[in-house]
Amino acid sequence: MSSSFGRLFKISTFGESHCAGVGVVVDGVPPRMKLCEADIQKQLNRRRPGGNKLGTERNEADQVQILSGVENGLTLGTPIGMLVRNKDQRPGDYGSMSEIPRPSHADYTYRAKYGIHASSGGGRSSARETIGRVASGAIAEKFLLEQYGIEIVAWVSSVGHQDATGIDLETVSREQVDASDVRCPDLVAAQKMTKEIVAARADKDSIGGVVTCVCRNLPAGLGEPVFDRLEAKLAHAMLSLPATKGFEIGSGFEGTRMRGSAHNDPFVKKDGRIGTLTNCSGGVQGGISNGEPVYFRVAFKPPATIGQEQPTVDYAGKETVLAAKGRHDPCVVPRAVPIVEAMTALVVADLVLIQKMRV
Amino acid sequence: MSSSFGRLFKISTFGESHCAGVGVVVDGVPPRMKLCEADIQKQLNRRRPGGNKLGTERNEADQVQILSGVENGLTLGTPIGMLVRNKDQRPGDYGSMSEIPRPSHADYTYRAKYGIHASSGGGRSSARETIGRVASGAIAEKFLLEQYGIEIVAWVSSVGHQDATGIDLETVSREQVDASDVRCPDLVAAQKMTKEIVAARADKDSIGGVVTCVCRNLPAGLGEPVFDRLEAKLAHAMLSLPATKGFEIGSGFEGTRMRGSAHNDPFVKKDGRIGTLTNCSGGVQGGISNGEPVYFRVAFKPPATIGQEQPTVDYAGKETVLAAKGRHDPCVVPRAVPIVEAMTALVVADLVLIQKMRV
Amino acid sequence: MSSSFGRLFKISTFGESHCAGVGVVVDGVPPRMKLCEADIQKQLNRRRPGGNKLGTERNEADQVQILSGVENGLTLGTPIGMLVRNKDQRPGDYGSMSEIPRPSHADYTYRAKYGIHASSGGGRSSARETIGRVASGAIAEKFLLEQYGIEIVAWVSSVGHQDATGIDLETVSREQVDASDVRCPDLVAAQKMTKEIVAARADKDSIGGVVTCVCRNLPAGLGEPVFDRLEAKLAHAMLSLPATKGFEIGSGFEGTRMRGSAHNDPFVKKDGRIGTLTNCSGGVQGGISNGEPVYFRVAFKPPATIGQEQPTVDYAGKETVLAAKGRHDPCVVPRAVPIVEAMTALVVADLVLIQKMRV
Amino acid sequence: MSSSFGRLFKISTFGESHCAGVGVVVDGVPPRMKLCEADIQKQLNRRRPGGNKLGTERNEADQVQILSGVENGLTLGTPIGMLVRNKDQRPGDYGSMSEIPRPSHADYTYRAKYGIHASSGGGRSSARETIGRVASGAIAEKFLLEQYGIEIVAWVSSVGHQDATGIDLETVSREQVDASDVRCPDLVAAQKMTKEIVAARADKDSIGGVVTCVCRNLPAGLGEPVFDRLEAKLAHAMLSLPATKGFEIGSGFEGTRMRGSAHNDPFVKKDGRIGTLTNCSGGVQGGISNGEPVYFRVAFKPPATIGQEQPTVDYAGKETVLAAKGRHDPCVVPRAVPIVEAMTALVVADLVLIQKMRV
Repeated sequence: MSSSFGRLFKISTFGESHCAGVGVVVDGVPPRMKLCEADIQKQLNRRRPGGNKLGTERNEADQVQILSGVENGLTLGTPIGMLVRNKDQRPGDYGSMSEIPRPSHADYTYRAKYGIHASSGGGRSSARETIGRVASGAIAEKFLLEQYGIEIVAWVSSVGHQDATGIDLETVSREQVDASDVRCPDLVAAQKMTKEIVAARADKDSIGGVVTCVCRNLPAGLGEPVFDRLEAKLAHAMLSLPATKGFEIGSGFEGTRMRGSAHNDPFVKKDGRIGTLTNCSGGVQGGISNGEPVYFRVAFKPPATIGQEQPTVDYAGKETVLAAKGRHDPCVVPRAVPIVEAMTALVVADLVLIQKMRV
Repeated sequence: MSSSFGRLFKISTFGESHCAGVGVVVDGVPPRMKLCEADIQKQLNRRRPGGNKLGTERNEADQVQILSGVENGLTLGTPIGMLVRNKDQRPGDYGSMSEIPRPSHADYTYRAKYGIHASSGGGRSSARETIGRVASGAIAEKFLLEQYGIEIVAWVSSVGHQDATGIDLETVSREQVDASDVRCPDLVAAQKMTKEIVAARADKDSIGGVVTCVCRNLPAGLGEPVFDRLEAKLAHAMLSLPATKGFEIGSGFEGTRMRGSAHNDPFVKKDGRIGTLTNCSGGVQGGISNGEPVYFRVAFKPPATIGQEQPTVDYAGKETVLAAKGRHDPCVVPRAVPIVEAMTALVVADLVLIQKMRV
Repeated sequence: MSSSFGRLFKISTFGESHCAGVGVVVDGVPPRMKLCEADIQKQLNRRRPGGNKLGTERNEADQVQILSGVENGLTLGTPIGMLVRNKDQRPGDYGSMSEIPRPSHADYTYRAKYGIHASSGGGRSSARETIGRVASGAIAEKFLLEQYGIEIVAWVSSVGHQDATGIDLETVSREQVDASDVRCPDLVAAQKMTKEIVAARADKDSIGGVVTCVCRNLPAGLGEPVFDRLEAKLAHAMLSLPATKGFEIGSGFEGTRMRGSAHNDPFVKKDGRIGTLTNCSGGVQGGISNGEPVYFRVAFKPPATIGQEQPTVDYAGKETVLAAKGRHDPCVVPRAVPIVEAMTALVVADLVLIQKMRV
Repeated sequence: MSSSFGRLFKISTFGESHCAGVGVVVDGVPPRMKLCEADIQKQLNRRRPGGNKLGTERNEADQVQILSGVENGLTLGTPIGMLVRNKDQRPGDYGSMSEIPRPSHADYTYRAKYGIHASSGGGRSSARETIGRVASGAIAEKFLLEQYGIEIVAWVSSVGHQDATGIDLETVSREQVDASDVRCPDLVAAQKMTKEIVAARADKDSIGGVVTCVCRNLPAGLGEPVFDRLEAKLAHAMLSLPATKGFEIGSGFEGTRMRGSAHNDPFVKKDGRIGTLTNCSGGVQGGISNGEPVYFRVAFKPPATIGQEQPTVDYAGKETVLAAKGRHDPCVVPRAVPIVEAMTALVVADLVLIQKMRV
């Protein structure tokens, strides 16, 4: 298993859905930075299920405890261990699934790989695994904001066929995002998205969606060609999230339809620096940030676990039917918003530290 | 700079567009494998410009030399150094660009990052950098094919608005791909794509496209959750390629429009193993291969360097106009095909070696 | 800070002397291995201070809790998080030291590096940091013993000028080692060592010593030339321990006095395999294990914190005198024995997993 | 195989004794640094055999070619590829050894590990492998000297029983070292060492020795606790060299005999900074440099390949006698001097780059 991420700003996560707890060790946090549990809890609360009527009904407190690395409210430069106890364990709900792998879930592949699988819940493939990411990402984004003014904002840009429009990359804020439960700052689209999710749940079904993220005030020069280009690290980070199926930056797949003369971003003088007139590049050229906003989109498939009956086979290959019990999100994108922000912060913080070695 | 990739099957590449040569050191190649320069040259020739009427007119021999790690036609288990001399150096062609960063090219960001940039060509951001990838990928794919029967085939699935249809993931072969210069096995679409490229070149312009890749016969169990999921490593690898703007696996962005009941791939009994009826997952669940074909799409933007005049500014911020001289590909996707295959092979070979430690 | 170690069997440790707790995340433990807290506690108890009359008087329970990665007594293949709460916190004892760096301790260098230092105890340089090593090492050695019959035994081979003699590398056992509080299986020498330590404590002073370690039943073939030779990884591991100043394997520094004709280990036929008649090589040739016992020695300096008055300067450079209060070990080697064993197990387990990728 | 070293200042070496060439890719060299082949050749010439009457008679030119990463005499920040062609190939000399593993050489273990071994010479375990280290180390030390005034000087401090005395760590220079062929700045000892080596050669035998190295002007704060302490990285680097059996820093093994009151280095005010009166610590406390000179000793065993007849067995286990033909060094330490310097420079350069992220 590969549960660490980052080179200098580096995390190691641990924990399954129904063990004692989930957590993370963060190594490389600069010393003498103000930090307390509330800084972290803020984003954990946004990730937490049960926060609104769109998610599962589980109400997990997810209180983080800082175990090390901080003293008198200041980071020591030493590893920061963080732990969230698993309180709401209801393994019984998953009993019926144990001999039947859920279609499109990780049950089958985990067993193929490890020859064993946590007996209940998603085990390590559970969404609870993302708690360590969000907790460490909260530290990374505090560092980036305070030291460099770097802002990271993600939002739901589509649910099923409902697309948000008119979001201003330069100004969109977390307050605007959180104005709707579905976390879409286009409030008209937000209503339609909500209906889509509610309808899916009513049908014991689920629905996919897209999260868009922007990272502003990134200085030019971040990203390590050739293999750790900014977009490569972001793509790696995003596709490491459960349920993701795609990543595109700047013009993305639409850009492949365009000609170079239309796609190229002309350089212009901007506030004393060299900027670009358009931003098809998504703020990255040659794998290195160019000072313009970095923005990208992440595709999340519909959750695999649904209440409907599905034809499938058990591990012995015998045909059967499966209908999931328990509490499951009909759509992951609203809760994915802080997770995407966290992974973005982790990627950028690492590249910022690496860049500091330059002359 | 970060010029190494992989954990156990690991490459380190070097070389700019106009230095003495480009190459790669491959560490982790299993010992006692048959290997000669022709095994590598085959894919380098497919990558090479000048092979057909669609690319640049440069005819670079790109002859690879194996420097180490092979004796009497067998690998020793030691690092394999490979070198391709840069023969066709015409720095003069790039002279006019030195004070004007090409829009959407890496000129500006390299200078912002390093404070210096190779005086001609793309330097390290040049497509020549991919020679080391293709040479090492050729070794990886030979290992995968011979030891596990794993097949990797990529092709051009769109150029501009021309889309290929009817490609059979289970059977498509490199012979079918190479049947057209544009490397699209749908020969009707291939003709339209060719026209699109020829038209772009006639207009001193460029055009984008998409490469699709399938990896067959992958055993179930490859991929390291949580951060080195198979799709995360593939996304990282693909977005590390010059000119890429997107990656999607399986249902990708289209899958976000779907409901779970339609998207889930029911398990079925297949040739004595458990397989899936559909393959929206793209052969990966929970970050681990499930035994079905892995397929994904990579978005390539239109090349930045075009012969048309473009308004821009020089490094001093003064407005000017730039029209690139020299020889430049109007569309990179035909040549990107072996590069995408190479990166896929490198990712899979690494995960195969890592998986061997299990059970 | 660099708090992770290993490539495939990989640990990340956290925790200072006086924070909430110390612990470790272990990634790469093979799945389906029996494991419970008692397996780990055993070695933690040997590391624990207060276990005998030679150490400090602190009696820290150091009870480990497994947080994740184990279910129903079996490892899942997922990261194993472990935590030991810090119970015995007496920061007041260290108050007087806060403005005066202890000579030869890490106080000064931590402040020089991080601009901040844990206000009490050794912070991250405290011996408590080694708890995470011992806990994870206990898992590694269980894996090695059960899967390969590999045995690791360390002991105190000298304290001050008292040297052990007559230890048989082939048979020495942990029971023999633990027969004396000082952990020297030569019981005559053990008595003299004990006197040396007791005398040092009586003088409010401290004394150094050497730990020797043997690793038996290692198969031939472990170790990754050129940079991760078996002896290089062991040296790295040992010199990463607090208070270490030297490492030698096989003939070590004495071997530099010898001629090749005397130093070379002739090959002989041994129990059906090729072995060596002598073992000046210490079981390693060319960085790779040769099937003979691997043995090495680790030098530990006398602890820096002593009760005697020492002339020194404070952080402002003003001359002063320092006499440490609190409870401090007069000699670290008896407690270092399980720590050396742990680091050896971590190195070997990682090399075993890496070697499994070979054909 | 693990042929890369370093995290930010990172090398990947390649090449066997009798393949086309040996070399290295250096990634992480800061941009805009003056660099030419002569900067590198200087240290390669010191490493080269045949330079004096003490070594082998092979006269290998070992001319380095820079393949990439440098333009117009300035580094680009891109990977620097370097190649030294193998000119003097005389595989025939090794023919008789092919079925008989040389005692205490890597022949047997390479075959045990890889199932194959270069048919002649030492293959990857040959001393030629160190060419890549020396070439990259020359770049690292140029960077350290020019940017930070850091000086690295190594010398032979013993050969067999002949020990150098009176070397001043603060002032010893490479000129003084190179004043004798044996590279010992104590010229009286140098003469005795020379006799020892000449005598060993006359007896078709070999002899071991010790290299001492000092690193001056290191700023306080380098080294990454806990696992990448300065001394741990140095120990790793040194024990990765062929023929090494030991490492000690500062007081080393002798320090284990001492009491803390004698061993502790009192802090004093020194030239406006806080320094230490003595330096038993060897310039490192808690794994971090303290601003005092860092010095350490590396044990080299007598070379395994000797002309004398040795009883041994062949790979089939049959008893036989081996007497090496060909040209072999009777003592490696004179040539090891620039290699030890190179590895020191690589370790320090990496830690300097990592430290730049702090504060």
